[in-house]
Amino acid sequence: MSIGPLPVIMIEPIVRAALLEDLGRAGDLSTDAVVPAGLRAEAALVAREPGVVAGLDPALLALRLIDPAIEAEIARPDGDPVLSGDVIATIAGPARGMLTAERVALNFLCHLSGIASATAAIVDAVRGTRARVSCTRKTRPGLRALQKYAVRVGGGANHRFGLDDAILIKDNHIAAAGSVAAAIERARRATGHLVKLEVEVDTLSQLAEALAAGVDAVLLDNMAAAELRRAVTMIAGRAIAEASGRITPTTAPEIAATGVDLISVGWLTHSAASLDIGLDWRVGAVR
Amino acid sequence: MSIGPLPVIMIEPIVRAALLEDLGRAGDLSTDAVVPAGLRAEAALVAREPGVVAGLDPALLALRLIDPAIEAEIARPDGDPVLSGDVIATIAGPARGMLTAERVALNFLCHLSGIASATAAIVDAVRGTRARVSCTRKTRPGLRALQKYAVRVGGGANHRFGLDDAILIKDNHIAAAGSVAAAIERARRATGHLVKLEVEVDTLSQLAEALAAGVDAVLLDNMAAAELRRAVTMIAGRAIAEASGRITPTTAPEIAATGVDLISVGWLTHSAASLDIGLDWRVGAVR
Amino acid sequence: MSIGPLPVIMIEPIVRAALLEDLGRAGDLSTDAVVPAGLRAEAALVAREPGVVAGLDPALLALRLIDPAIEAEIARPDGDPVLSGDVIATIAGPARGMLTAERVALNFLCHLSGIASATAAIVDAVRGTRARVSCTRKTRPGLRALQKYAVRVGGGANHRFGLDDAILIKDNHIAAAGSVAAAIERARRATGHLVKLEVEVDTLSQLAEALAAGVDAVLLDNMAAAELRRAVTMIAGRAIAEASGRITPTTAPEIAATGVDLISVGWLTHSAASLDIGLDWRVGAVR
Amino acid sequence: MSIGPLPVIMIEPIVRAALLEDLGRAGDLSTDAVVPAGLRAEAALVAREPGVVAGLDPALLALRLIDPAIEAEIARPDGDPVLSGDVIATIAGPARGMLTAERVALNFLCHLSGIASATAAIVDAVRGTRARVSCTRKTRPGLRALQKYAVRVGGGANHRFGLDDAILIKDNHIAAAGSVAAAIERARRATGHLVKLEVEVDTLSQLAEALAAGVDAVLLDNMAAAELRRAVTMIAGRAIAEASGRITPTTAPEIAATGVDLISVGWLTHSAASLDIGLDWRVGAVR
Amino acid sequence: MSIGPLPVIMIEPIVRAALLEDLGRAGDLSTDAVVPAGLRAEAALVAREPGVVAGLDPALLALRLIDPAIEAEIARPDGDPVLSGDVIATIAGPARGMLTAERVALNFLCHLSGIASATAAIVDAVRGTRARVSCTRKTRPGLRALQKYAVRVGGGANHRFGLDDAILIKDNHIAAAGSVAAAIERARRATGHLVKLEVEVDTLSQLAEALAAGVDAVLLDNMAAAELRRAVTMIAGRAIAEASGRITPTTAPEIAATGVDLISVGWLTHSAASLDIGLDWRVGAVR
Amino acid sequence: MSIGPLPVIMIEPIVRAALLEDLGRAGDLSTDAVVPAGLRAEAALVAREPGVVAGLDPALLALRLIDPAIEAEIARPDGDPVLSGDVIATIAGPARGMLTAERVALNFLCHLSGIASATAAIVDAVRGTRARVSCTRKTRPGLRALQKYAVRVGGGANHRFGLDDAILIKDNHIAAAGSVAAAIERARRATGHLVKLEVEVDTLSQLAEALAAGVDAVLLDNMAAAELRRAVTMIAGRAIAEASGRITPTTAPEIAATGVDLISVGWLTHSAASLDIGLDWRVGAVR
Repeated sequence: MSIGPLPVIMIEPIVRAALLEDLGRAGDLSTDAVVPAGLRAEAALVAREPGVVAGLDPALLALRLIDPAIEAEIARPDGDPVLSGDVIATIAGPARGMLTAERVALNFLCHLSGIASATAAIVDAVRGTRARVSCTRKTRPGLRALQKYAVRVGGGANHRFGLDDAILIKDNHIAAAGSVAAAIERARRATGHLVKLEVEVDTLSQLAEALAAGVDAVLLDNMAAAELRRAVTMIAGRAIAEASGRITPTTAPEIAATGVDLISVGWLTHSAASLDIGLDWRVGAVR
Repeated sequence: MSIGPLPVIMIEPIVRAALLEDLGRAGDLSTDAVVPAGLRAEAALVAREPGVVAGLDPALLALRLIDPAIEAEIARPDGDPVLSGDVIATIAGPARGMLTAERVALNFLCHLSGIASATAAIVDAVRGTRARVSCTRKTRPGLRALQKYAVRVGGGANHRFGLDDAILIKDNHIAAAGSVAAAIERARRATGHLVKLEVEVDTLSQLAEALAAGVDAVLLDNMAAAELRRAVTMIAGRAIAEASGRITPTTAPEIAATGVDLISVGWLTHSAASLDIGLDWRVGAVR
Repeated sequence: MSIGPLPVIMIEPIVRAALLEDLGRAGDLSTDAVVPAGLRAEAALVAREPGVVAGLDPALLALRLIDPAIEAEIARPDGDPVLSGDVIATIAGPARGMLTAERVALNFLCHLSGIASATAAIVDAVRGTRARVSCTRKTRPGLRALQKYAVRVGGGANHRFGLDDAILIKDNHIAAAGSVAAAIERARRATGHLVKLEVEVDTLSQLAEALAAGVDAVLLDNMAAAELRRAVTMIAGRAIAEASGRITPTTAPEIAATGVDLISVGWLTHSAASLDIGLDWRVGAVR
Repeated sequence: MSIGPLPVIMIEPIVRAALLEDLGRAGDLSTDAVVPAGLRAEAALVAREPGVVAGLDPALLALRLIDPAIEAEIARPDGDPVLSGDVIATIAGPARGMLTAERVALNFLCHLSGIASATAAIVDAVRGTRARVSCTRKTRPGLRALQKYAVRVGGGANHRFGLDDAILIKDNHIAAAGSVAAAIERARRATGHLVKLEVEVDTLSQLAEALAAGVDAVLLDNMAAAELRRAVTMIAGRAIAEASGRITPTTAPEIAATGVDLISVGWLTHSAASLDIGLDWRVGAVR
Repeated sequence: MSIGPLPVIMIEPIVRAALLEDLGRAGDLSTDAVVPAGLRAEAALVAREPGVVAGLDPALLALRLIDPAIEAEIARPDGDPVLSGDVIATIAGPARGMLTAERVALNFLCHLSGIASATAAIVDAVRGTRARVSCTRKTRPGLRALQKYAVRVGGGANHRFGLDDAILIKDNHIAAAGSVAAAIERARRATGHLVKLEVEVDTLSQLAEALAAGVDAVLLDNMAAAELRRAVTMIAGRAIAEASGRITPTTAPEIAATGVDLISVGWLTHSAASLDIGLDWRVGAVR
Repeated sequence: MSIGPLPVIMIEPIVRAALLEDLGRAGDLSTDAVVPAGLRAEAALVAREPGVVAGLDPALLALRLIDPAIEAEIARPDGDPVLSGDVIATIAGPARGMLTAERVALNFLCHLSGIASATAAIVDAVRGTRARVSCTRKTRPGLRALQKYAVRVGGGANHRFGLDDAILIKDNHIAAAGSVAAAIERARRATGHLVKLEVEVDTLSQLAEALAAGVDAVLLDNMAAAELRRAVTMIAGRAIAEASGRITPTTAPEIAATGVDLISVGWLTHSAASLDIGLDWRVGAVR
């Protein structure tokens, strides 16, 4: 996946909203009261545990939106692995603005780095297999574009971005349509030539029906490794084979070894823990 | 803490945004193509692991915003503990709308229930001590009000909602002001009579300085249990004693046993995993 | 393509914006001054030329948002062909609200019906060929979802909804990448399994290169009919064949007869004229 | 009419919205995947048919909002007539940003230039008469300010911008009030001293009634040329005489020759075709 | 002026914003904590000083947006004069919602009633003269439509709603154009037929120049009563005569007696005091 | 209170909204028509009556948002006292932009300076007592943050910013809870450790009950001076003593002399008149 940065125009609204959410109606009472207006400071974003960096753009934008005079030098751009103690970026500028924006900047950086790190961990775990690691639509409200970007930064692939950029026929769609074949037929008639079609199947007989009808991809839901292997054999390259269903870093290698093309992991965006990153103020830096 | 529901006017904007994020520019291609318009369905929100329910309001609002004809009956309201298999609510209405809104509804419910459950776990772990459990400002951008609500649902207390509703003097503020006493003096002059003042201290000598200056609360940062106990003795009820610094469910009991009034846990809002809740379609329900 | 309605949540923001754009800062001066508050009226949306109806949802929503007491009965739903004089819907309610919302309601209905009618005309013109008719991204700012919906209502297919739901490698991308094959190779590595890949080619040798690299679709840009026929033969079903380049209702049949799978027509959304639809007040209806 | 530019603050929201509509949730997949980040390019906005330029401000703003490093040199500012092949502006900067913003920039420029060109054509057609050419409120939702600006650029005049900046009493208002005179009387009492009052009349006897009551302007709706001439004679300069009703470039000269002061043409904003303008990448420019 | 209500669609955004401004990120802490969820209450909006009611729509909408179950019965609609002690409306419903929305509802009602009352006072003071009383553009940011509505409710007329609905040539425009006549000539060429043109003049010789050039209205700025009388004589009905310049209730009668058509009073919208209105909870009503 | 400036990110949305409210759909007709595009001008913001300056940030931002080329030099920053005739700031730049933004800039500056001046007047009136002067939540919709900032600039203190940053138990809360003590008990259980608790009391017996239950502050509502003195004696420093109830500059000194800690004055934000400040164009400055 491309890890080109998201255009600023896409991230600025959520960064502004996050700052306003924190500033409330009176702004930073503590800093305004205690820190002199003219004071300058230097600080470093430092990893406190190993992981992969993601989210420097929104983090640094949060600082600049509070005070355009805050400058940053990036040591480890998005996608870089870091160890505990590594400096990710150094920041210098008016102390008030840096203190006011600190928490929001870290909230973006720690959350997105957490997702990138979790993704990278699973990508590493399945290295050597043909399986790519993908996220799902189980994202935090309002943060999907950023979270999916973080998955790409971690080496993962993106599944659908929403209900409108691909067809994914699930069990309840099939029940409503009457059969796998009927659902596929309806879907094919209804969509444009650039929309891919994937079907979720729970059994090998459903898989056979889907393959006969012709699909771009099949989502093999909650199948055990042995069944996945049989499915891969049946598919024989006629469709993308995606394994899904509560896959964790622990279970990923066995799943990936079955020969599937893709394993999708909701956990990456709904439950990955933040990466611990702090803003260390340099000794003597506040002056 | 009160667990009164948030007014609809506060949650509707984020629910609308989440739906539009998922619908994109073309809506639900799969459902529109495959599911007949007149079909009705029934389904149940079912817990797949034990925890505490939170977020039914935004979840059910997501369904109603897609189709006002969708009706819900709540079996386990926010705050109720559930076991795996427990039905949280049943839903009935037009199948298309239920399928279209399903993912967004679950994204709210699983995330907020995850936070409530994590909070409840720590609250349980420290039961019998005087310590209350509090969240921090380490929240997901745009979701602070909902996440803090979920903490209350889980039995926790809320720390500051933003930079503007209390003073919290941190180490860098102290460095900028020159001393703990100077920082407190400036803060007190600058704020209204309904703003509380808390100071973060790293050492017992800083604590002594803060107590001498007079504060409403002290944040005892990253202190070991023995030091916390000494701090509590020094404070002697003159200020709220808050312990902070990477507290986990495992370390919470020892910290709480030191006699502090409050333990604040950033992990609740930045890293708690989603609670696994599914939408089970009733057998024969799609008709 | 599915002609299921867009969810209200998707059209309400643009309808609200259109009403506020018309109401300005003082509302409907003429109606408020001249028309008594209690007066009721009946009226009919009547086609003044033949075409295909599209846009009743936003049109009627405009009326309801001004006054929820306005009721409508639809005679010809979206997708229905109409002749001059045909009643599309009848409306009854408070006269003030109907007069205030009339222009905005008609602006939606006439514009979208114009697009649906133009689409239907080209679809008719190519009937009997294998070619489907598609729109492009040459849409009016802010109106893409509605315009593309109108294309579907007219029997057309939708091309990409934006820059993010499929890959379309154009001539300048190819120039930047160095070759067709290099561009395709980069694109394939960078995208998820549900993203289709199309390449724009200007010559048959570029086409050969694209087919050799493997693509989902080829956009045959500005080729004459004879060249298109040769292209279709070369493709031989290995990719979707899309013809593009200033196709009009006049030239469409010859293009479609070449055997291409799709003809895309920017004109549908950037230049189709409004369908003439009026709101006829019933004789004696204002009472 | 003044053709001073609209303030940036007025056009920036719609340009941002148009870009976000195109970027969706993942941005420009094709360009990010295929085009190297450091590549620069040059290109020219070139007319492919004769017309009048309008909309350079939103078009160039679209480019700058994607990448502030994109620079433009304007050869033919808004209001300039162009022939096929004329360069309107040259653009240089990072290739990625130029490719990403190209479609949105052209969508504004082609649409608004289409309106300006159509306006200029009718203005030319009626040159030598006293008639000015005006638009109506039949505009595209959300685009009224820009469309009306394009009419001014084309040499046309603007009618009402909304329901709130002048009184226009139409047939249904008259029916509700009981008579032309009663409607005018109510309107005059109800409005401020800077609000003009126009009445739509269908017959010469209504016209006589309106003139007797005193109005600033009369809208002569759907009258044939002979009747318009009689109306102009009756009005004798006591009010602005506006002719309206499906006026096209073909019928405009005859209408204008009747001596009316104004002809209003809804077609300018609801049905004018886009002007064909392309972005030609310079040979060897992508480097 | 019409005192028809503003459409809900125009007032809902500012009412929602006002509620969210008050609710912040945690809602009504006091009420949620102290008042039982099921409790119902009754209360009355009661005038505590004499004046004219304005703003019931946004006030009652604030209550309904917090809880749709809150019902109101209006005793004195907008425009009614009230004495101290008069009940304006009675309200009944869930106590929590009524307490939560109370302040925002009163903020709208007291502010707008203050403007209506101030307007009515000046209208009364000049009764018997031909002068109407008008507001200006000196309004509170974001509240112009509501404030101008309140002026209408108080019996006043509205001046321009913004920079775009009439021409008002002021002294600095004249200086830039070189002369009154040159400015008028430019303005007339630049505007549509429904835009009125007013010129501000400081001296009688400027007035003569304006009348010679032909204008719809003249703003006689800061002239003493004697000079105003001479101006009215000079104008002789050829233009609307507007007096302006720090007119207060005290000075208004003398100004109005000069024969001017209009006196405009910025004070109405920038400095009128709130009308004192309270929400009296009925004895025994909270139950 | 701190008079640090509000971050630009907090004031920009309301300034943009105010400009768009004034520009409407066509912008500044008068200036665009009459003033040449290239003309430059100089002007000075000049006080026309004595007071305290507040609001230069939004005022100057309004100018810059219309034209970034407008430059300002501040002579009297926010908080400075001015006499009639004092220059507050000088402004230079393109004449068009200065004329277009003038009214909006002044609307912010005059309103906020009016509040600061009124606050300063009361602060002066109570100098020598221990009483601080505070505002309330009786603010103009959408302007609370700015209005409360102006109070701080005038030397006042801020009361609650909303319903969510402190507990204020009023008479109706007490009625709902059954007693002062019951209400306080519920509130204390429900709130976090950084939320202060104030109770409104009407009688000395209620005061006794509140003090016994323990509160941070008491609001002594509408008590006469003698009763306030008794209340202060009873409180004896155990809580902040706040006097409230239609306090005016005239009555403030007597109230303050009773020994209360705080007097809160709703009038500051709901009824303070604008400070008269004009934009004087320099002789010969428009060139």
